[in-house]
Amino acid sequence: MSVPKTQMAMVCEKSGGPVVYKEIPVEEPKADEILINVKYSGVCHTDLHAVNGDWPLPTKLPLVGGHEGAGVVVAKGSLVDDWEIGEGAGIKWINGSCLQCDFCQQADEPLCAKALLSGYTVDGSFQQYAIAKAAHAARIPKDVALDAISPILCAGITVYKGLKESGAKPGQTVCIVGGGGGLGSIAQQYAKAMGLRTIAIDAGEEKRKMCLEQLGSYAFIDYSTSKNVIKDVQAATEDGLGPHAVILVATSEKPFQQAAEYVRPRGTVVFIGLPAGAKVVAPVFESVVKMITIRASYVGNRKDSSEAIDFFRRGLIKAPFKVVGLSELQKVYDLMHEAKIAGRYVLDTSK
Amino acid sequence: MSVPKTQMAMVCEKSGGPVVYKEIPVEEPKADEILINVKYSGVCHTDLHAVNGDWPLPTKLPLVGGHEGAGVVVAKGSLVDDWEIGEGAGIKWINGSCLQCDFCQQADEPLCAKALLSGYTVDGSFQQYAIAKAAHAARIPKDVALDAISPILCAGITVYKGLKESGAKPGQTVCIVGGGGGLGSIAQQYAKAMGLRTIAIDAGEEKRKMCLEQLGSYAFIDYSTSKNVIKDVQAATEDGLGPHAVILVATSEKPFQQAAEYVRPRGTVVFIGLPAGAKVVAPVFESVVKMITIRASYVGNRKDSSEAIDFFRRGLIKAPFKVVGLSELQKVYDLMHEAKIAGRYVLDTSK
Amino acid sequence: MSVPKTQMAMVCEKSGGPVVYKEIPVEEPKADEILINVKYSGVCHTDLHAVNGDWPLPTKLPLVGGHEGAGVVVAKGSLVDDWEIGEGAGIKWINGSCLQCDFCQQADEPLCAKALLSGYTVDGSFQQYAIAKAAHAARIPKDVALDAISPILCAGITVYKGLKESGAKPGQTVCIVGGGGGLGSIAQQYAKAMGLRTIAIDAGEEKRKMCLEQLGSYAFIDYSTSKNVIKDVQAATEDGLGPHAVILVATSEKPFQQAAEYVRPRGTVVFIGLPAGAKVVAPVFESVVKMITIRASYVGNRKDSSEAIDFFRRGLIKAPFKVVGLSELQKVYDLMHEAKIAGRYVLDTSK
Amino acid sequence: MSVPKTQMAMVCEKSGGPVVYKEIPVEEPKADEILINVKYSGVCHTDLHAVNGDWPLPTKLPLVGGHEGAGVVVAKGSLVDDWEIGEGAGIKWINGSCLQCDFCQQADEPLCAKALLSGYTVDGSFQQYAIAKAAHAARIPKDVALDAISPILCAGITVYKGLKESGAKPGQTVCIVGGGGGLGSIAQQYAKAMGLRTIAIDAGEEKRKMCLEQLGSYAFIDYSTSKNVIKDVQAATEDGLGPHAVILVATSEKPFQQAAEYVRPRGTVVFIGLPAGAKVVAPVFESVVKMITIRASYVGNRKDSSEAIDFFRRGLIKAPFKVVGLSELQKVYDLMHEAKIAGRYVLDTSK
Repeated sequence: MSVPKTQMAMVCEKSGGPVVYKEIPVEEPKADEILINVKYSGVCHTDLHAVNGDWPLPTKLPLVGGHEGAGVVVAKGSLVDDWEIGEGAGIKWINGSCLQCDFCQQADEPLCAKALLSGYTVDGSFQQYAIAKAAHAARIPKDVALDAISPILCAGITVYKGLKESGAKPGQTVCIVGGGGGLGSIAQQYAKAMGLRTIAIDAGEEKRKMCLEQLGSYAFIDYSTSKNVIKDVQAATEDGLGPHAVILVATSEKPFQQAAEYVRPRGTVVFIGLPAGAKVVAPVFESVVKMITIRASYVGNRKDSSEAIDFFRRGLIKAPFKVVGLSELQKVYDLMHEAKIAGRYVLDTSK
Repeated sequence: MSVPKTQMAMVCEKSGGPVVYKEIPVEEPKADEILINVKYSGVCHTDLHAVNGDWPLPTKLPLVGGHEGAGVVVAKGSLVDDWEIGEGAGIKWINGSCLQCDFCQQADEPLCAKALLSGYTVDGSFQQYAIAKAAHAARIPKDVALDAISPILCAGITVYKGLKESGAKPGQTVCIVGGGGGLGSIAQQYAKAMGLRTIAIDAGEEKRKMCLEQLGSYAFIDYSTSKNVIKDVQAATEDGLGPHAVILVATSEKPFQQAAEYVRPRGTVVFIGLPAGAKVVAPVFESVVKMITIRASYVGNRKDSSEAIDFFRRGLIKAPFKVVGLSELQKVYDLMHEAKIAGRYVLDTSK
Repeated sequence: MSVPKTQMAMVCEKSGGPVVYKEIPVEEPKADEILINVKYSGVCHTDLHAVNGDWPLPTKLPLVGGHEGAGVVVAKGSLVDDWEIGEGAGIKWINGSCLQCDFCQQADEPLCAKALLSGYTVDGSFQQYAIAKAAHAARIPKDVALDAISPILCAGITVYKGLKESGAKPGQTVCIVGGGGGLGSIAQQYAKAMGLRTIAIDAGEEKRKMCLEQLGSYAFIDYSTSKNVIKDVQAATEDGLGPHAVILVATSEKPFQQAAEYVRPRGTVVFIGLPAGAKVVAPVFESVVKMITIRASYVGNRKDSSEAIDFFRRGLIKAPFKVVGLSELQKVYDLMHEAKIAGRYVLDTSK
Repeated sequence: MSVPKTQMAMVCEKSGGPVVYKEIPVEEPKADEILINVKYSGVCHTDLHAVNGDWPLPTKLPLVGGHEGAGVVVAKGSLVDDWEIGEGAGIKWINGSCLQCDFCQQADEPLCAKALLSGYTVDGSFQQYAIAKAAHAARIPKDVALDAISPILCAGITVYKGLKESGAKPGQTVCIVGGGGGLGSIAQQYAKAMGLRTIAIDAGEEKRKMCLEQLGSYAFIDYSTSKNVIKDVQAATEDGLGPHAVILVATSEKPFQQAAEYVRPRGTVVFIGLPAGAKVVAPVFESVVKMITIRASYVGNRKDSSEAIDFFRRGLIKAPFKVVGLSELQKVYDLMHEAKIAGRYVLDTSK
């Protein structure tokens, strides 16, 4: 497979942006790396945080963002013997890790102090040819559409991990807060595929219909019209004691405190996502007598990733998306900034 | 064994106290209950909260407090065939529960909506003859001193449960915040018996000596002199990544926030105890990228209780205590209110 | 509700049988018991073992068998306050237990040394009015058909427990050995409801069709025609490494040894059922280098039971059954003895 | 550090042996490897199995055996940035693995189909300079004696792993079958360090004394004089119900069947070690009604290894050993063959 010397990419030259469409060199893979011809890449809110420099951790600069890239292997380093040229491969948030530290040894690669973050500390998938560590790139099964799977590589893996971290068992009930949004709608589908029952919380008739009719939830609480969200969520469970777990995909303080109140005794509140500056607050007395657990979930490890992809492969997860050209990324960011996005934008790197 | 019709007890007639020493009738056990001749009873801070009406949950009135009572069985109901007259028995915080609900079925009796609380919703151990549900009373092994074991029945069980809830495994490190206090000093001993290593946090040379020389901690951080508690705790672990778990026996906001910062990635912060009105606060971003768990631990179930007692029976736990007469309870409360107590006061019900 | 003094029952007077249809007295519930008007009762192979005295543990005599009884509460003892007259209630294998011993404390009531076994050490559900301990009787939700749910009370709970004990997680693959039989067909449905994927092993085209088209398995291995069952099972998994767990519902030695060979490394082989005199045999070398687990599963505890019933209530489990009169029990045993039964026989106690 | 071109090694030229002391070239580390100057190497029974070709899996030939090698890093490949020249490093049974497959991803490196086995499929530690994959070599802390730690690198890790796999919790009781032997004596020490209580089974007064007085067991059953091993083991537990787990370090059929009988209901029997041709046999009925688990444990993963080493570093484990020259290996094998070894032989590679 012939690999060009240069390619088109969306580059952020300085913190705060903007991103510009320009020609840059194609990198060569080191001994333990593969080079992926990215066909499609999803755009995640994290990419905008990276451009804006919202988080305490600085990005590389200039930066090619993106961490939901789906494509095919076009070159590989000398030590790589587990990948074939032409095989489907994905760029995830965790681009590589040391595979040797205490955390890597216990399969918590996202906690590795040397973890490379795609589109953040190393260049990511908003380019036609991206590098990934061979041991970390996601394996994309044959016969899977590369545009459709791209949002799974971050959004899918992340909500699947959150559901696993919740400890909820098949037959138990999980409340998905923000069920009508991008992460929330995928979360409901994974939950269903895992044998869990879901209650969705969001606002508006359109989202109610979507959650109940398409996403498999058996109850929907509209926080914009409910007189008492806590009572309504608890009443939606058979015995009125509340859901076994709560997944907060968009943590802000009020939903968090409510979750600690309506979750079932011995239940777990999982928060996902990295809003800048937010805090978790819970009352001690009520938390103790209910013995609740509050757990912060980050992204999946490699095993979680392959499991999340396998649920997608089996046709159990549909993430709505809209394809636009790679060159239109700044427009996507503008829409995102204005909170005007429903579903995922996926970039076609050929235009 | 002959049981008198009346007995001496410390009674709280109205919320706010005081407690008065008076003669009251001895109750008869119902079909599923035993009557225990309480010999000794520990005094816990919870007893003072009960008298003061500090918590959202109201107490019975008039109230005989106490939930660390050690004695012997003197009578039993018609359905009771697992207890012998003369056997050692203890009054715990959980006096009884329905044994049928969802929580009782999963061995979470403390979460039972019908749980009876000794010295709070039913009369407790500050009297000579106290009632307990046969299925819930603690079994006190022969050859165990009844005065020494009484503090184990609440303080011991509670810290042991907290250590179990922390998920820390043998060989791992747990930080005990408030290591020089009553709960903290017992916690270090249980931790050691469980194969855990401990770092104690507290203030002052006396406590440092006690934690390092008597209680088995391998490191002590004095928060009153440390320039940076977070760095000091982390530096006290082999790899500088912090302890695998933190046990907060006296939750107030500052120690809690610090704990979330110095705990090891993937670690667990457990809080125990019920300070009125306190809140847990943690930063979202840092919690997520470290994947930490915050867990509220209440009291042990029956299994935890018998395990905690077994560690004591084997001579591995020494809780310092001072014996005074039952009639002196109000004085103990006064000292407690003034925060002048080191170790546990244990009441001798014979005087 | 008026309760008659006598009733019709099928009674086994001596070990070896037969069972006879006769009038016997209706018992009165003790303080902690309920009296259930049994409407329907499933017939399990265990009932025949009881009549035949096949097991090391002796039965009571004369014996009223049966442990899959579904009916309504008609009377209750003085201590019972959690059941209403007229509520749906079920007789399970575990009729009662002490609720106090080490095993009951850890929610392993089936291991209680004082456990009462319905239709074995106490009279069971092959009568119109049967006794159960209030804390143990199964709660049958409204709007559930009493004939259809009766096989769930043993067969359903048992396979559900086996699946839980297997440790298989949603998305993983479980092989059901004997998938075309009574237990096996229910096992596949529970597995599917729990988010598991199943491979069924059995013989014949009819069973193949049933497993693939009705019971949700994605692969079927016909042991009567397969040239190499081990290779075929492994080939039916994506990566050829074999299923994560195996459920053996009819343990005999050959299937057991095969299971230890085709199960995935780190996988679990669960065996259910109590064939008289059978042995488990596994090769040490192969087991060690694959790190496999072999686990014996008995019946569910009370929590497992209510979970298994909840899956049924939600319409996810269909166990085929055929209703005949209580008086025809001996004929059912005769068919069972000749291995001529497909699906479950359910007895209508009114005839 | 200067590395010679040739070195002395013990080489097995053909299956069946013998091993000969000869000069061979020193290998150069590949990009992801380190070269370790082995100072001491323990001799394990597995090494003799390798020479004899006892197992179904063939060895490389000619073969340098050994998988308990302790030394220092003297050279490293171009990709290795986590090791310093001069750092203490150990050769374990698992020399390397792919770090990418399903099993490596879940931290089960010993199950990797591409795992390299030291002294079996790749040359091991019976030479002065041995190769290990950088990501797999054990880290040996400073101030640890290299001769004393060498047996920990296989024997220590293996029994520690077995104890972890048993699921026994601090305060519970584990029975160590073969407690007076090499693995068994280390197992008792790890168990104690993990907060477990142990009962040892073996034969003879000398072993009784050693187990009770030096190794921390609280009970000893002499199988050569006991009239009923099963009853004696159960009687040695507080409630007579038997130990929570059993570790079989020398599996033969009789001890295995006994273990299944005396283990506590819900308990786990772990077998370790790879006797050629042995079988596990357990009765179905008794196993099911006791709900026991039988688990095959292999060697530890990297995390288990570093934990096992840390217990040693803390001075909690003493494995008796005797040092002889590398060139005397054949004599050690001869003694081993005659079952005349107590404790571990450790080879000094300088002679």
